[in-house]
Amino acid sequence: MQQTIHIQTAEFHGRTQALLSFIREQGLTGIILFDAINILYFTGFAFIPTERPIAFAINAAGERAMFVPRLEVEHVKSSTDVDRIGHYLEYPGNPHPMVAFKAMLEDMGIMLKPGASRVPSAPETKPIHGWLSALPDYLAAEMKRAVIQIARAAVGVDTDGYPWILGYEGPRLTELTDMIVLNVQAIINRMQAVKSPAELALIRESCKWGHLAHVLLQRYTRVGETETAVSLRASHEATLTMMDTIGPLYRAQSLWSSGPNAGYRGQIGRQSAIPHALANHSSFQPGDVLVTGAGCPVWGYNSELERTLFVGEPNKQQREMFRHMKNLQEVAFTTMGPGVKCSKVDTAVRAYYEKHNLMSAWKHHTGHAIGLRYHEGPYLDTGDHTIMQPGMVFTVEPGLYTPELGGFRHSDTVAITVDGLEIMTYYPRDWQSLVIPI
Amino acid sequence: MQQTIHIQTAEFHGRTQALLSFIREQGLTGIILFDAINILYFTGFAFIPTERPIAFAINAAGERAMFVPRLEVEHVKSSTDVDRIGHYLEYPGNPHPMVAFKAMLEDMGIMLKPGASRVPSAPETKPIHGWLSALPDYLAAEMKRAVIQIARAAVGVDTDGYPWILGYEGPRLTELTDMIVLNVQAIINRMQAVKSPAELALIRESCKWGHLAHVLLQRYTRVGETETAVSLRASHEATLTMMDTIGPLYRAQSLWSSGPNAGYRGQIGRQSAIPHALANHSSFQPGDVLVTGAGCPVWGYNSELERTLFVGEPNKQQREMFRHMKNLQEVAFTTMGPGVKCSKVDTAVRAYYEKHNLMSAWKHHTGHAIGLRYHEGPYLDTGDHTIMQPGMVFTVEPGLYTPELGGFRHSDTVAITVDGLEIMTYYPRDWQSLVIPI
Repeated sequence: MQQTIHIQTAEFHGRTQALLSFIREQGLTGIILFDAINILYFTGFAFIPTERPIAFAINAAGERAMFVPRLEVEHVKSSTDVDRIGHYLEYPGNPHPMVAFKAMLEDMGIMLKPGASRVPSAPETKPIHGWLSALPDYLAAEMKRAVIQIARAAVGVDTDGYPWILGYEGPRLTELTDMIVLNVQAIINRMQAVKSPAELALIRESCKWGHLAHVLLQRYTRVGETETAVSLRASHEATLTMMDTIGPLYRAQSLWSSGPNAGYRGQIGRQSAIPHALANHSSFQPGDVLVTGAGCPVWGYNSELERTLFVGEPNKQQREMFRHMKNLQEVAFTTMGPGVKCSKVDTAVRAYYEKHNLMSAWKHHTGHAIGLRYHEGPYLDTGDHTIMQPGMVFTVEPGLYTPELGGFRHSDTVAITVDGLEIMTYYPRDWQSLVIPI
Repeated sequence: MQQTIHIQTAEFHGRTQALLSFIREQGLTGIILFDAINILYFTGFAFIPTERPIAFAINAAGERAMFVPRLEVEHVKSSTDVDRIGHYLEYPGNPHPMVAFKAMLEDMGIMLKPGASRVPSAPETKPIHGWLSALPDYLAAEMKRAVIQIARAAVGVDTDGYPWILGYEGPRLTELTDMIVLNVQAIINRMQAVKSPAELALIRESCKWGHLAHVLLQRYTRVGETETAVSLRASHEATLTMMDTIGPLYRAQSLWSSGPNAGYRGQIGRQSAIPHALANHSSFQPGDVLVTGAGCPVWGYNSELERTLFVGEPNKQQREMFRHMKNLQEVAFTTMGPGVKCSKVDTAVRAYYEKHNLMSAWKHHTGHAIGLRYHEGPYLDTGDHTIMQPGMVFTVEPGLYTPELGGFRHSDTVAITVDGLEIMTYYPRDWQSLVIPI
């Protein structure tokens, strides 16, 4: 058998089975998904979302369907084994794509015709299953309200109709039916949060190629060079090397990047104190503090590696900020583990900021989950009480930002294991390893 | 005065004034926008959207506000001159960001407290203004329904609450208020569709650098080279050259790319018949038909240049398909102009397909508008009856796709002028100029 690294068909089927269990427990007619990453997760079909609606639908009998424009028919056939492929000619077209979509949903029994939407045999109230217990109160309450009145039939969705992107205009699902349209994205978020062994392996692979891009980024960063030139060179070389190494095993399946990438996003010198600056054409100067970012999509899965670099040796104040930043990461690492609430980690980290009088340099929480989305829930945040489980993957990236000294942030990608955690990124964290010689 | 190419403050103010006119005509309390491109369009603030909600709001008095997480406060201050900046600490945080947002909206008079949402002085029915006449019937009907019952106060939005991206979870606006929440994205789409002279100049600039990337892509494409290597090399060199040429005048302001880019998106050989294939690691072989794509974001604005290339001279059947494809483009060019319905162009193009028995090779409509979004409405589609106006910018890209011969598509970016059209892209279109020597 040939080596492969991508997610196997059986795993996609397992995911749709989990969705089906939810549909049956809650008595839904089915679930309709429009989001490209949700569709990739349940079908393996990677595509560029545009104004032309694309959807995945599954009914209570387990029949799985894709709905695509004419130009994606061959592409979807070659990418996934769904039971049915419906298509329309074009958007906006005449009739509108939602006309054909509605007909397909009715044929699958997911959308019921007006009048048929009362389910005579359904009880007036339904027991609330374990699925809802993981949700924040206001979301659980919304779902309960909908589920309790399930005598009117309900369909699950990730958005109420195709979202208005790139000029798409069309009716919401609630305008096409008198059924209850129940947003189940929160449930899907919780499924996606726990990674399988195959998913963890893809994230580890992503870490390796992000590492290479970052090594090259650091190597090519020199006084007088520009951010743009160094980032392009590092990303370009890392991509060719990765393709020469694992090309036949590899697909990016990402909208954002087709290989390893590393750069600065404008976080250079004084600008390094702006956490989400966008790239610009700065050049490196002695004394600059730099914050990097590197990663690589692997079959859609992401990792995150960020480091604080110094152009020339840092001064005493900068070394002190750097030391605190590393300590903040250590506080998170030692607090994290299975059974621990996410909020406990951020609260412990926040306590360190407060104890050392660093709150004026605080700008954001400790981290976020990562996977098919480069940011996902749950969050390492004082307000997120999700309990960590083995298979969850987080970034750990507390930062310190001051207008005078610059920005200080490392980000590492970390998986929760049955007995603790695995730090998946392995780039040096000490400042001595992170100085650009001048 | 220093040369600049970006949109000036007065133009951003003109855009918000137009929004304000709409608010006042329709008697709305204000408008709330969450979409990153809408916010860029009205404020000049470019940012990376994440799970942390960001919003722009304007009230009926014309007060403009941004609402951002703590980590974007300095960034937003340095990017835009809005009258008010509200912020929250973190997402999900405690309290949830929507608590602070609601308070800001109430303070601005955009969201009214329960009970206050009946406007005693408002008439029971309102005249419907010209704004709505451009909309498709079902959208106009939805807006009329809402506007007619304006005795209940209404607020305009682009989405009903912050969209559920990257793990964001939170209440919809309709759950926070008993006001009418009216989706006005269709109105904004129509404002954005007509480009100003400054916007047209940015799209022309984008065409130039996409052209350079495409020249290099064609130059470096050779038998045995891979798609990945050639695309990276062309994009990399074009970006450095552009930065050396207009670096101080330039910002990408795009989520997708930080400079010129050109590539194949997997449309190589037999795969060229799949219009929206994703990039993979194919290598070029004699006889391949290739479909390219090139562009460059310039202060957020996009252009599109696509060409059909041949690895070695095309055979007779391929030349015939190529000739038809060029004719299809010509049909569009000669039909387009101010006062013409978009649908008329696609209908004329479709007639050519039918006349020449080419419908089996048809996969999509003639083109789409382009600007801050790389696809926008209106569409050159049989179902889009928008009347073309000077300042609208479209791609013209009818395609022919057969499994045996491959895909054939050029895309040019074209602006409607007062007396016809300007073809903004200027890359050769004849097959003799598009052969890769073998």
